[in-house]
Amino acid sequence: MKGFNPKHIRVIGFDADDTLWVNEPYYRRTEEEFCNLLQKYGDIQEINQLLYSIEMSNMELYGYGTKAFMLSLIETAVKISNGKVDAIDVLRIIDMGKEQIALKNALLPDVWKVLDTLSGHYRLIVATKGDLLDQERKLKNSGIAGFFHHIEIMTGKTEDHYRKLLNHLDIPADKFLMIGNSLISDVIPVINLGGHAIHVPFQVTWQHEEVHDNELSGYEYFTAKALKDILPVLGF
Amino acid sequence: MKGFNPKHIRVIGFDADDTLWVNEPYYRRTEEEFCNLLQKYGDIQEINQLLYSIEMSNMELYGYGTKAFMLSLIETAVKISNGKVDAIDVLRIIDMGKEQIALKNALLPDVWKVLDTLSGHYRLIVATKGDLLDQERKLKNSGIAGFFHHIEIMTGKTEDHYRKLLNHLDIPADKFLMIGNSLISDVIPVINLGGHAIHVPFQVTWQHEEVHDNELSGYEYFTAKALKDILPVLGF
Repeated sequence: MKGFNPKHIRVIGFDADDTLWVNEPYYRRTEEEFCNLLQKYGDIQEINQLLYSIEMSNMELYGYGTKAFMLSLIETAVKISNGKVDAIDVLRIIDMGKEQIALKNALLPDVWKVLDTLSGHYRLIVATKGDLLDQERKLKNSGIAGFFHHIEIMTGKTEDHYRKLLNHLDIPADKFLMIGNSLISDVIPVINLGGHAIHVPFQVTWQHEEVHDNELSGYEYFTAKALKDILPVLGF
Repeated sequence: MKGFNPKHIRVIGFDADDTLWVNEPYYRRTEEEFCNLLQKYGDIQEINQLLYSIEMSNMELYGYGTKAFMLSLIETAVKISNGKVDAIDVLRIIDMGKEQIALKNALLPDVWKVLDTLSGHYRLIVATKGDLLDQERKLKNSGIAGFFHHIEIMTGKTEDHYRKLLNHLDIPADKFLMIGNSLISDVIPVINLGGHAIHVPFQVTWQHEEVHDNELSGYEYFTAKALKDILPVLGF
C-alpha cells in the first residue's frame, strides 16, 4: 500500500472533467474546427501555438471553462489574421463554443458502478475546477449528482484551494483521498498537504496540465489504468 | 417590525454586487463605450435593445458575469453591423471587457462600519450570483472577506438556490436575513421560503432585475435608503 490504509480514509474526492466524464476531447474537436475555419491565415501548428499562448496570458483574468476558451479563440482569430478575419467567421466561432457548451458530456466507463460501490462506505465529493455554470450543468446532465455529499467548484486546484476545501469539510488531510486524471491538479497538491491520491490518466491531457517526470520524484501514489481499477486498491 | 425580531436572526446574508460594492455602473460604462464604437451601425437605443435581447437568449448557456457579457457584446457587434464590423473593433471589445474585469470595484459607503458592527453579533455570509473567478477576485480586492463565515457564489438566486444554501448552512429560514439591492434576487425568494429581507436599492438596476409593483403585494420587508440604515432596523 503506497502510504495509506483504505480503512483510514473518510472522504474520497473525485475530479470531474476527464475523470468522471469526457471533456478535453470536446475542446480538441472545437480547436480542429477552428483551425479549419482559419486555415488561410496559418497552419494548424501556428494557430494552436498562438491560441495556447493567448489562453495562458488570459488565464489570470478569465480562469477556466468554455466562455474563457471562446474569448481566447476569438482573440486568436483576430490576431492570426492580422485583423482581417471576417465578422461572420467570428460569429461561427461563437456558435462553435455554444455547441460545445450545450453538449452532454459522456460518462466514462464504469463510473456508475464505482460510485455505487463506494458510496455506502465513504463520503464522496466532487472537487472540480472550471466555470461554475458549466460544471453545475455537466453534473446535472450526468445523472450521478446524487452520489455526492458535496460539490466543490473551484477557481484552481492549488494546495491553498485544497486546504480550504479540507477545512470546509472539517477533515484532516490524511483521511482524504483524491482521484483524478491530472498529476498537477489532483495528485501533487493533495500529497503535499498530507493527503492521498490515485492517478487515473486520461487519453488526452491539456498542455497546461502536463508534468515532467522529474517533478514527480518522491511522490507516492497509485496509478489506475481505468476508474474501475481504483476498487481493488480500496479493497473491493 | 415587519415580520422579524432581530434577536431571532442568526445568519445575515449580503448580496455583493451593488450592495457591498459598485458593479452595474461599470457595465453601463462599457456599454456606452461599445455604442460609441458601433455608432455607424445603429443608434444607442437600437444597439442596447439588441444587446439586451442577445444577453437574455444567451443567459441559459452563459449565465452571469463579465465573460458572458463580453461574448454577448461581440455577438451584438457582428449582428448590428450585418457582419461588417471590423475585426480590430472586435479586439477593442475584448480589451474593453478585460479592462472591466481588471477593475477594482469601489466599496459602497459605510460597508466596513456596518460589517464591523454586525460581525460580533451574527454570522455574516456573502450570497452572490455571477462568475466564480470574477466574484472571488472582487471579494479578495475588497478587503472585507475576513468578516464572512461563508461565501456562496451561486449560478442563480431562485428559491431553490436559497433552499440549498440554507440546508448547507444548517439553519431554518426564519433565522436568516438577506440584505441586497435586488427585489427579484435578494428579497422575494427569501421571503417565499419563510426568511427575512431588507431591500437596499441601488442607483442603477439592470433591466433583467426589474420588478413591477404588482408583483410585490403581500411581501413584507424593510427598505433601507443606504446600507448604514440597516443598523437601526437591527437595534444598533
